[in-house]
Amino acid sequence: MSWEANVRQVIPYVPGEQPKKKVIKLNTNENPYPPSQKVKKALEDFDIDKLRLYPDVNAGELGEGLARYYNVLPEQTFVGVGSDDVLATAFLTFFNSDKPILFPEITYSFYDVWANLYNIPFKQVEMDENFRIRKEDYYGENGGIVIPNPNAPTGLAKDPGDIEDIIRHNPDSVVIIDEAYVDFGATSVLPLINKYDNLLVVQTFSKSRSMAGARIGMAFGSKKLIKYLNDVKFSINSYTMNILTVTAGKAMLDDDGYFKDTVEKIVATRERVKKELKALDFEFPDSKSNFIFARHKSVPAVDILNAAREEGIYLRHFKKPERINDYLRISIGTDEEMDSLVDFLKGFLGR
Amino acid sequence: MSWEANVRQVIPYVPGEQPKKKVIKLNTNENPYPPSQKVKKALEDFDIDKLRLYPDVNAGELGEGLARYYNVLPEQTFVGVGSDDVLATAFLTFFNSDKPILFPEITYSFYDVWANLYNIPFKQVEMDENFRIRKEDYYGENGGIVIPNPNAPTGLAKDPGDIEDIIRHNPDSVVIIDEAYVDFGATSVLPLINKYDNLLVVQTFSKSRSMAGARIGMAFGSKKLIKYLNDVKFSINSYTMNILTVTAGKAMLDDDGYFKDTVEKIVATRERVKKELKALDFEFPDSKSNFIFARHKSVPAVDILNAAREEGIYLRHFKKPERINDYLRISIGTDEEMDSLVDFLKGFLGR
Repeated sequence: MSWEANVRQVIPYVPGEQPKKKVIKLNTNENPYPPSQKVKKALEDFDIDKLRLYPDVNAGELGEGLARYYNVLPEQTFVGVGSDDVLATAFLTFFNSDKPILFPEITYSFYDVWANLYNIPFKQVEMDENFRIRKEDYYGENGGIVIPNPNAPTGLAKDPGDIEDIIRHNPDSVVIIDEAYVDFGATSVLPLINKYDNLLVVQTFSKSRSMAGARIGMAFGSKKLIKYLNDVKFSINSYTMNILTVTAGKAMLDDDGYFKDTVEKIVATRERVKKELKALDFEFPDSKSNFIFARHKSVPAVDILNAAREEGIYLRHFKKPERINDYLRISIGTDEEMDSLVDFLKGFLGR
Repeated sequence: MSWEANVRQVIPYVPGEQPKKKVIKLNTNENPYPPSQKVKKALEDFDIDKLRLYPDVNAGELGEGLARYYNVLPEQTFVGVGSDDVLATAFLTFFNSDKPILFPEITYSFYDVWANLYNIPFKQVEMDENFRIRKEDYYGENGGIVIPNPNAPTGLAKDPGDIEDIIRHNPDSVVIIDEAYVDFGATSVLPLINKYDNLLVVQTFSKSRSMAGARIGMAFGSKKLIKYLNDVKFSINSYTMNILTVTAGKAMLDDDGYFKDTVEKIVATRERVKKELKALDFEFPDSKSNFIFARHKSVPAVDILNAAREEGIYLRHFKKPERINDYLRISIGTDEEMDSLVDFLKGFLGR
């Protein structure tokens, strides 16, 4: 016997690489544009005396700002250290059934990591041949449901009517819709939290709001659902949202024009790049997100991945499941960055 | 059946009140002095473009700075969102035995909350009549040990030799020493991490480093221990430490002179207030922390608590266990704040 016998042995999630040198970073779906200058101003004006006190347990002006922005009550709002913190806390809070929770076979690769960590049984639900989620597959008995919309890494969005059908068929489960990428072209089901008390909608500042470095995720749900989530949160760490992040996040939320312009630019770049990739014989699901999940008709993904890396262009590749082994996930950068990628591809593919 | 049947039902930790109006706040052991002006400068100079990228998974320059400052390897260092995050993750990682974990009957009231949340069996170990922890009580079979030094809310410090005796008797358990208040007058057992691979030493920026609002906690242990802790952390949230907090924390760490001056001032104030409280017929264990845990010889704690609150002076009172029902935990503020408290007490007690 040793103390190691009682250690929780897990296989952790492996995040995309964060290179220290200057590269074209299209591997972790970050926003290529900086946050609003209002964030700069807020940090310059910040009174450091505030740092000596514990922050507000509900993320203070950021929590209140989100409630106003999304037109819900503060008690329908939850803020965490990135959407990973929000989702992990939600798994721990809501998924305590003996029945398996359901999520798509190809999806955000943290879901099975959390399920394993907390000993939650789970079933990865098959998708159709075009990576589409079939709503009927989520109508059977289950211990909970989590579906990203748009899905990652496919980028495919589901119609809000289909999402509602899944929620309606599952009154005995908490249904989590992970909308990390929703601002880039899908429709949020946030308004449905007033209709279904078992719906949790999760979003983040890491993608469309240019603030992955600040770690802000949020969830919206019925007052009852948020109360349960808070009870567990307050059983782990009362003060998760530091005052600096709250200040910076609120400033970003306040510059809605800048936010929308940025999203619009990224969407325009994505649509242009789709055409260029198609011309180079790539095929991909029709992304509504800030990345494109593409495979080349003849050249293996790993060959492109490695050659791009040699040129200082980082892309993301998932080894499993085998079905996506030949795909690359390409984050949408600035127009200049995407031009560099396209130039590289043309050269590499001999066009 | 409803979705609520599968909710994790818990009784969360209740943090000390954070009043919104201007009061003399001696209820949550915050530092009365602001962080270093270097923190102000670092925030003013901060390049907001960094916010769009995910932060370093190991708290970047803050993690490295801590390793240097405490003369350990980066791989012996772990950083989290306050010491609550660090401790909760450590409970989940290391306390997976069927045997109960041990901690003092009167101690930080989050320990039993985490144990309940994660279904960890626990035993609250009795203390002697003077609130002292008896090392021999921790020599029996157990699933892990957590002891704060100094203890809270008593403020009593244990000799590092006694702590080492506890560690030496427990090679089959992880022993966590929670040193949240160590800088105010106790001796850290941090150097022992090179001798015992099952020792985890936890500290925080929330008290002695004036940064409760930034949420920085840290742990030190053997490379093996930290690796296990990181595996679980990476199974919950890869990026817990945001870049703003990392930047501010590093700037604070760099101003060691200011930090030491601040601690010295607080200790001097504490020793002076001890004398004044004694003269007013209070009795208390000899605190080595930034608070005094005191009871009056004749006036009930709740009466003092409520009257002080009327005057805008916030103190902390714990209703249970009954043994401490007559004590108040008084954080050490500035000299002016403590003078206001003493003046109030003199008036209230009719001196």
